[in-house]
Amino acid sequence: MGGDGGPSVVVRGAVLAAKKYKVKSILVGDTKVIEDELRKYPKLPPGTFEIYHADEVITMDDQPAKVLRGKRNSSVHVGLTLVKEGLASGFYSAGNTGAVMACSLMILRRISGIDRPAIATMLPTMIGESLILDLGANVDCKPLNLLQFGVMGSVYFSLLKGVESPTVGLLNIGEEAVKGNDLTKRSHVMLSELGKEGAINFVGNVEAKQFYLDGADVVVCDGFTGNITLKITESVGKMAMSSIKGQIKYDPLAWIGALFMFRALRSFSKKADYHQYGGAPFLGVNGISIIGHGSANAFAIANGIKMCEHLSKKDIIGKLNAEVSESVDYLNDLNTMDTAPSI
Amino acid sequence: MGGDGGPSVVVRGAVLAAKKYKVKSILVGDTKVIEDELRKYPKLPPGTFEIYHADEVITMDDQPAKVLRGKRNSSVHVGLTLVKEGLASGFYSAGNTGAVMACSLMILRRISGIDRPAIATMLPTMIGESLILDLGANVDCKPLNLLQFGVMGSVYFSLLKGVESPTVGLLNIGEEAVKGNDLTKRSHVMLSELGKEGAINFVGNVEAKQFYLDGADVVVCDGFTGNITLKITESVGKMAMSSIKGQIKYDPLAWIGALFMFRALRSFSKKADYHQYGGAPFLGVNGISIIGHGSANAFAIANGIKMCEHLSKKDIIGKLNAEVSESVDYLNDLNTMDTAPSI
Repeated sequence: MGGDGGPSVVVRGAVLAAKKYKVKSILVGDTKVIEDELRKYPKLPPGTFEIYHADEVITMDDQPAKVLRGKRNSSVHVGLTLVKEGLASGFYSAGNTGAVMACSLMILRRISGIDRPAIATMLPTMIGESLILDLGANVDCKPLNLLQFGVMGSVYFSLLKGVESPTVGLLNIGEEAVKGNDLTKRSHVMLSELGKEGAINFVGNVEAKQFYLDGADVVVCDGFTGNITLKITESVGKMAMSSIKGQIKYDPLAWIGALFMFRALRSFSKKADYHQYGGAPFLGVNGISIIGHGSANAFAIANGIKMCEHLSKKDIIGKLNAEVSESVDYLNDLNTMDTAPSI
Repeated sequence: MGGDGGPSVVVRGAVLAAKKYKVKSILVGDTKVIEDELRKYPKLPPGTFEIYHADEVITMDDQPAKVLRGKRNSSVHVGLTLVKEGLASGFYSAGNTGAVMACSLMILRRISGIDRPAIATMLPTMIGESLILDLGANVDCKPLNLLQFGVMGSVYFSLLKGVESPTVGLLNIGEEAVKGNDLTKRSHVMLSELGKEGAINFVGNVEAKQFYLDGADVVVCDGFTGNITLKITESVGKMAMSSIKGQIKYDPLAWIGALFMFRALRSFSKKADYHQYGGAPFLGVNGISIIGHGSANAFAIANGIKMCEHLSKKDIIGKLNAEVSESVDYLNDLNTMDTAPSI
């Protein structure tokens, strides 16, 4: 029921996932609304979708706490419960992010050994892709959180990309170990120790100016910094495209040039298009929960659904549990050596 | 003596400032090296430059603390002392930023009422320009610091742009007052109070995704977040240009297109070129001190020198002192109502 495009776009995405990726979805929401939407695709074989009814709708403005208490029969509750009960492989929503996180925590629970689950996403770089986490689930972090992000991010990147020992970097404002704020300086010490132990392949600080050039496979940061990074990128991109488009509008020569450059411009904007990434996994809860962009189109939703299936086939939850339980004692030991916040 | 290009580029910049902007500079550094450089410009009228000799050179790797104790006869020390003694209107350096900040603090001292001076810079946006501060002088901030940044930023923006009551926003990850991390939530409360008092024109949170679209005239944040914002912008820009260039290289049609689009692409890259901004003022010390980009070219250095003269003519230091002393009591009152850090 969620997302800026509402059920119409979500259903179109599920239809696309069924056709293009042969992934079968369970549609959760108001049965009547869903059936009306499905009637737009009369050629679909019967039984392509299961529908689970959910009465209540969570709006983009609903506060997470209110959702937890008040809207127990929302599509988010019902969908996540299907995952918990093993009736669905994973959950995808383009709806209210705060509500999806809160319900995922309550219904799926955390993986044992993880204090704070994190939102992670792949971003394109000049040499490939980087996974960055957290993107906003935890706005104030302790070093221990960043260590756990490093362990979870490594598992996820490795599973998605087939890289055995992905590099892990700490997003920072300088290359040297002594650079940064209180959090990054303390985290650097502990991440180095974790790297020495072989639990992650820590490669040190990733300076923000290198992030899109030659950063690390996995880049960890607190959720405030991660969100700023993601959204500033979006903002620069919008300004750049609008500035070039504006020039083209008033300059007939540029207009002709743009036609010739179509492929070049398209290749870049395709690279920068978040729609192809499907969604951002909420890593650290004990089940697959994927957060889509509010303005996800049908293509993005189809990719999000495919992502659920892919992660489930690769047994991400089993692998996260195994990896975290292996390093949990060591993480806790490291935490005791952390110095108190110097404020 | 500083900057990636060394004295040769700095002297070329000073020559450019003299020719283009009619601004006379005092060159501080190794007299012999400077005179050798000046010999490259035989047509310069005699007396275009004064030279002050400084024996010692601060390298990019020197730690600020070491510089303060050990290199008392560096060009940074000598130059800032000229400002303090009223023999120069302002100081500009493209050298070691940490050393310039440390020496500025020690020699010029802080403006009374300012706890932490901040580095500020103008960034282009879709609707004009935004001043953002702090960019890295203070990686861990208290709300009081952000309030002082707001007051100083308003004075600076107003003076540079002729805007009477510039809008001040708080860089954050959401629009609503309740969004953000501990620092931004506490700062929002205090900035709102300061706005009600009329000391600044506070307009609330500026979400990162709106920063380059329709942010505020002045945007305040801690130095870690500001540095990440600036450097991620640089990183995205480099990736975008390189991605488009890469396509052009292998695609003859795109190559032809780029010729037609020359003006459009140039207009954008000119807008994004930090060289035209000269440098970033270190706001809050009791004298003009401008920090140039390490890789500043002669054009950037000339603009930095012009900036010193412009700010001096507009009496920025007098105006900052007046404005800060007017709001200092109120700032301190606000600080007492701030809640303790919740860590």
